[in-house]
Order: sequence, then structure tokens, then C-alpha cells
Amino acid sequence: MRVLRLGAGAEIDVLDGRGGMFHAKVVEAARASVRIAIVGPAPAAAEPNARVTLVMSVLKGDKMDDVVRDAAMMGVAVVQPVVSARSEVSLAALRRGHRAERWTRIAIASVKQSGRAVVPAVGEPLDLASWIANRSPEPVLVLREPAAGVARPLRDATRSRAVQLLVGPEGGWAGEELAAFDAAGFCAVSLGARTIRADAAPVVAMAALFEAWEAW
Amino acid sequence: MRVLRLGAGAEIDVLDGRGGMFHAKVVEAARASVRIAIVGPAPAAAEPNARVTLVMSVLKGDKMDDVVRDAAMMGVAVVQPVVSARSEVSLAALRRGHRAERWTRIAIASVKQSGRAVVPAVGEPLDLASWIANRSPEPVLVLREPAAGVARPLRDATRSRAVQLLVGPEGGWAGEELAAFDAAGFCAVSLGARTIRADAAPVVAMAALFEAWEAW
Repeated sequence: MRVLRLGAGAEIDVLDGRGGMFHAKVVEAARASVRIAIVGPAPAAAEPNARVTLVMSVLKGDKMDDVVRDAAMMGVAVVQPVVSARSEVSLAALRRGHRAERWTRIAIASVKQSGRAVVPAVGEPLDLASWIANRSPEPVLVLREPAAGVARPLRDATRSRAVQLLVGPEGGWAGEELAAFDAAGFCAVSLGARTIRADAAPVVAMAALFEAWEAW
Repeated sequence: MRVLRLGAGAEIDVLDGRGGMFHAKVVEAARASVRIAIVGPAPAAAEPNARVTLVMSVLKGDKMDDVVRDAAMMGVAVVQPVVSARSEVSLAALRRGHRAERWTRIAIASVKQSGRAVVPAVGEPLDLASWIANRSPEPVLVLREPAAGVARPLRDATRSRAVQLLVGPEGGWAGEELAAFDAAGFCAVSLGARTIRADAAPVVAMAALFEAWEAW
């Protein structure tokens, strides 16, 4: 009402964030609220035939905003921010800054721009060890830098179409983290020979997975 | 010498931009020049088994910088900026601003960060019609938005591993441009059902192509 200056009678589209998109009309616009009437279903972009949970080490500055935006655009199901050994930010600072709420707002904006009607869940940031201990049962793919010498391409990592993609911070994973991944049975994967920046890695990996799985 | 404060004896790596990477030593550092001695070959990241020329409609503001950076990181061979009907910038302004030189500097920085020893060529901006008239012979894939209803996925577009990937500006292609693409025999391709932002489309498309072709 404020940004677009819409009033009663305006035609809009609304989404419920869970796959429903509708044509609607503004019935009454007040200062603090708006009433609308659903007119009928509206077309939404199909979701990918794959369920990707992005478990992302929080990056510096605003880069995590871009990661959330791009992952939401691509069709991510869940974004779980984690703080790992080389993340240059603390859990306390993330919580104090209400970053999860901010990332949810960014995800909603990106979903609208991409035509999706599903808003990915953005979890409260966790430390990496807590996430490992309490994670969901889907297979975990750990993205490794080329220097790690991991030859396994994404496509060969799993037959599951529901995966958790674990992406490290700018400085990569610490030795004890890699040992924990091995102990937990995570699958190390790589994106070829060039070094992909941490903030670009999620979208590159999701594009590769969707292409490998024909899940676009 | 200035940024890293290196002097005679410092060990560095140098690249020739055409695939050669070398260990070297600084022999003499003066104010305006530096002499080095090559010590021996250094390992560089392998190039992809595919030759992608990105023909990119110039985007607004700094977004084209990010496109060049990301494409260079991924392994693009050539970036050819073009001005299309809905580009919100003129050829004259791009030339006056020496943007091609700026993009080349960005490509070099990204190549170094990614470990490549090949610097992609960045062409002087052209208007779209000139590029069509004078283009190289490789097949052209035109990226279309989901609303265009193009069902052909990237993988089925061509058997060639050398392609020219044509990506439009924020506002998409104009009708007369689409007609020209058809007349020229270009192949329309899509990246699934969600709308991918213009600045993200090149990296998403290259990831999908490399995965489809196993060309990482």
C-alpha cells in the first residue's frame, strides 16, 4: 500500500509461501492492515524435482545476503546457516543482529522475483558441531576446493534427490572439521579444477545438481 | 611491489594469460618496473573441456562487473559485451568510460583468484546487430526466460563443445531481436521454470553446460 500506492480495487497476486499463488483484489486498505479477496488461482513457477538443503557457513559482510537471494531464486528448499571454525562472525553477533529474520525477508523477495510460490525456510544460525549432531537424515554432500584433490563429481555422489549441501566459508574447512565430516560419513564432492568463490559456490553447485538430475 | 611490498628476492607466481603459470623470483624492483627471473613451471587449474563465448547484454550499474568476474572464474573463453534494445546504457558511454579495459582488469583478477592461467578475452562492446552480422561460426544458444515457454534444455541444444551463449539484459529481448535470432538460426534454450536474474544467468548456464557435457 505504501510502496506501490495501491488502494481498494487494485489487482494483485499473493502467495502463501507453501506453493499457493493467487490472483486477489484489495478490498480495504487501512494504515496498518489490508484486507484482500482471493479471486482465483494464479500460475507459479514449478519447483525443482529435487530437495536441496543448503547448509552454508556464514560469510563476511553482505555476502551471505547474496547467497540466500541466489539460493532462493534457484529453488532451494531450506537454508541452514552455520558458523564454522573459519567463519569470521560469531553466533552471538548473528542472533543479536536478527540475521535469520533479515535472510527470510531476502528469501521472500527473491522468491517473488523468481516466480516461485514456495518460500524456503531459513533456519536460525547454528554452530557446525550442533548441526552435525542434530541434522536431518538426507545425505550430506560437502563441497571441497580443487586443491583437496577430490575427484568425485557431484553427479556421482548420491542417488538421492534430497540432499544437504554443505558449503564452507571463504577460508575453507579446518582439519578437525574435515575429520568430523569423514567420521559422519559425509560425501566430499568437487566442482572442477577452478577455485569457485564461497559466495558463488551454492548457485554453481545447485545448477550442476539440477542439470545432472534433470531436475530443473 | 606497492601493494604487497615485495622486494628483490621475493618468490612469486606469474602467468602469461595464455595457459602458462610459472614460479619466479623478483630480481630488481624499481619505481616503475620490476624484473623477475622464471624459476620453473607452476601448476595452473585445468581449463574446462568446452569453449564458451559469453555474449552478454550490458547490465545496469556494476552488475556487468560481477558477470565478467563470475564468468572468468567459471572458465569462460571470451566475453563479448553487446548493447541490445533494452540495455539501459549506450555504446558511446561504455567506450567513453573505457569499460572494456575495466572488465579486462576484473577478468585478470578473477582468473588469478580461481587458479586459471588463461585470461579470457573481453571484446570491445558492440551493438547486437553488428555482433550478429560479424559473429564467429560456433552455434549460438539464446537464453530465454521461463515465460517464453521454450522447453529445450541446454543439454539438447547442440553437440558442439564450442558455443556462444547469448544472455539478455534485465528487461529481456525485444520482439525484433527474437525475430533476428530466429532468422539467424540461433537455438533458444531455457534454465527451468524459475526466473533467473540476468546477472546470475551466465554462471548458472555455464555450470549447467559443464555438468551436461562433463566438461568441468
